[in-house]
Amino acid sequence: MAGNVIVGQSGGPTAVINSSLAGVYKTAKDLGADKVYGMRHGIQGFLQKRIVDLDEEIRSDLDLELLKRTPSAFLGSCRYKLPNISDDKEIFDTIFEILKEYNITAFFYIGGNDSMDTIKKLSDYAILINSDIRFIGVPKTIDNDLAVTDHTPGYGSAAKYIASVTKEVIRDGLVYDVKNVTVIEIMGRNAGWLTGAAALARCEDCEGVDLLYLPELPFDVDSFIGRIGDLLKKKNSIVVAVSEGIKTAEGKYVFELADHTEYVDAFGHKQLSGTARYLASLISETFGCKTRPIELATLQRCAGHLTSRVDITEAYQVGGSAVKAAFEGDTGKVVILNRVSNDPYICTTGLYDVHKIANIEKKVPLEWIINDGTYVSDKLVNYIRPLIQAELTPVMITGQPRHIVISRD
Amino acid sequence: MAGNVIVGQSGGPTAVINSSLAGVYKTAKDLGADKVYGMRHGIQGFLQKRIVDLDEEIRSDLDLELLKRTPSAFLGSCRYKLPNISDDKEIFDTIFEILKEYNITAFFYIGGNDSMDTIKKLSDYAILINSDIRFIGVPKTIDNDLAVTDHTPGYGSAAKYIASVTKEVIRDGLVYDVKNVTVIEIMGRNAGWLTGAAALARCEDCEGVDLLYLPELPFDVDSFIGRIGDLLKKKNSIVVAVSEGIKTAEGKYVFELADHTEYVDAFGHKQLSGTARYLASLISETFGCKTRPIELATLQRCAGHLTSRVDITEAYQVGGSAVKAAFEGDTGKVVILNRVSNDPYICTTGLYDVHKIANIEKKVPLEWIINDGTYVSDKLVNYIRPLIQAELTPVMITGQPRHIVISRD
Repeated sequence: MAGNVIVGQSGGPTAVINSSLAGVYKTAKDLGADKVYGMRHGIQGFLQKRIVDLDEEIRSDLDLELLKRTPSAFLGSCRYKLPNISDDKEIFDTIFEILKEYNITAFFYIGGNDSMDTIKKLSDYAILINSDIRFIGVPKTIDNDLAVTDHTPGYGSAAKYIASVTKEVIRDGLVYDVKNVTVIEIMGRNAGWLTGAAALARCEDCEGVDLLYLPELPFDVDSFIGRIGDLLKKKNSIVVAVSEGIKTAEGKYVFELADHTEYVDAFGHKQLSGTARYLASLISETFGCKTRPIELATLQRCAGHLTSRVDITEAYQVGGSAVKAAFEGDTGKVVILNRVSNDPYICTTGLYDVHKIANIEKKVPLEWIINDGTYVSDKLVNYIRPLIQAELTPVMITGQPRHIVISRD
Repeated sequence: MAGNVIVGQSGGPTAVINSSLAGVYKTAKDLGADKVYGMRHGIQGFLQKRIVDLDEEIRSDLDLELLKRTPSAFLGSCRYKLPNISDDKEIFDTIFEILKEYNITAFFYIGGNDSMDTIKKLSDYAILINSDIRFIGVPKTIDNDLAVTDHTPGYGSAAKYIASVTKEVIRDGLVYDVKNVTVIEIMGRNAGWLTGAAALARCEDCEGVDLLYLPELPFDVDSFIGRIGDLLKKKNSIVVAVSEGIKTAEGKYVFELADHTEYVDAFGHKQLSGTARYLASLISETFGCKTRPIELATLQRCAGHLTSRVDITEAYQVGGSAVKAAFEGDTGKVVILNRVSNDPYICTTGLYDVHKIANIEKKVPLEWIINDGTYVSDKLVNYIRPLIQAELTPVMITGQPRHIVISRD
């Protein structure tokens, strides 16, 4: 396949999204692409022709290796959903004009649900206008909420980070001989995959978290406080993991229950965070014991210093597989991961029709949530465990992780 | 020196406090101590005779190695300040009775200022009652606020963690092509050593934080907002590091300026945290841009997954040096670190009179704080840099850091 290819990154960053970029770049070069272009800030930057030649950014094998180990979208990202084709053909015409200008034969987009929607619409439009440009989606999201694929690259590293720091936080809580409750707040507005990873803290050398609340089920504040009371009678140090997105049966976010001024963002939207803070405060008031809210915040998605090698490798593989698929003539597809075997863990890539994946949110199966919604079953733990295996440490320079940075806009 | 020795851990945990414990244990065994006892939860547990035989806990070289790489006080810790000898002789008599009961000839206490005060009082009391038990302090604190010693074990790893995750947070902020301000809140109520470590994020591959506020100088909210406004005109993504302990010129903590209900702990004390949250909220209101507060919380002190090898090694050395000093007849001393050379970094241990160290708080020199109190000079960066060098990764088992856990109470 002659011509050039282009790749973009979209949605929230992950620790391994650049490993997919490295996979796309390497395989495209290996398969004979003339130019491998990168779009700055996804389709949004593409529309402004903010396009870079990746040969000028990735100049050596060391650069490529650094890219695999650099967290957070190298090309920049965006949150931008294309309109429906019937609503606004103009924007699609603009996109295809730019693609033609750069002699693009294949377009790769690394991202989550919104990004797969972009691939869907662009590949549909290509059919409409009889273009032979190929569009392939590369899955990425720490939330692990993409349908069909066994899991998404980015999730394993976030899960490893959560599982590991939760162990450390539990140890920290055991230090003083006093009653104390720590509430850890974990990302995931609608899906509890990330919060569920805190269950992995329970292992030979760690009791694990005491309670674990996913957003898949309604959260009852009174019952929660009752359980904390029972636990406080039995042990000194209690650690609870909650999803930022837990809601009451009435559909109100738990952080919205706080009576003080809400913390709002630029657009006047209530910030989702504050759940741990509210619950810790409530426990303090109710039981008069020491409490500590901990928000893992963006660290759980950008912690390049603690990644899963399985995850980095798979992220690289899905990037490469996307290119291979396009060069073999596929379009309107998403690369997926198929778990062939759990123990030993064996996983392959596959291809799936983007129409059957985009805009479907995969949640934790309700039967995997146990103990009246306060813990998760071993099925979830066994599902996650292989994804956090082994490490690929950052390249450490003068004591800090070294990253590769884009040289131009 | 015949007989047994005992060791305790006190104050806030660090990622390397157990490396000092390992150093005490190993050197004591090597020098011929019969038993090496550990006290649970410091002097508080000691008074309840919660004493463990460390031979039963550290059974192999692997255990010893795991101990060096396990964060957070293995023996448990306490916050307990002994009374003045003149106020309550009884408690001192009790302590010396227990020491006699266990045939203790040397007592080691790993901790910060309060712990050094304990060593001071116990060694003073030994002189009073003509006891020949030796008392040696082993320095430990992430705050780095101990006098005389060049730095304290625990600080290097906390600084490395802060320097590294700050780089990751900065990268995360660059992802979207929108104005955004991240405020990172870092531990250190009165001393800015930890917050200063965020300055190390500025290196070849990272612009670093834009502003940096230490608690050594008063914080002016209006001037801060002015500077953020200026920065927002120049660039998209701004990252600021603030100490949790910054105060206004009137002596009010910045987090106290928030008008919503304060978050209080068990004892009705205002929680120190909330500074980043308050400032982020204020920036949001003033400029209508996206903001994100990030509290590094306890992760900065218990992150065994990202430690400095220099720090772990020095922590081990000060433990061993303390034992050596006691066996050579010293008492009423603290082990200190002397930096012989900065480049190449060479550091040795020494001994210092505990009376001249205890209860003195070492702050960042004011001349190292520059740009009207909004950044730190290269002098601080050069001081910190050697302390964060090299890694000693945790022993990773099934994808998570393995810790050694005490087997009995």
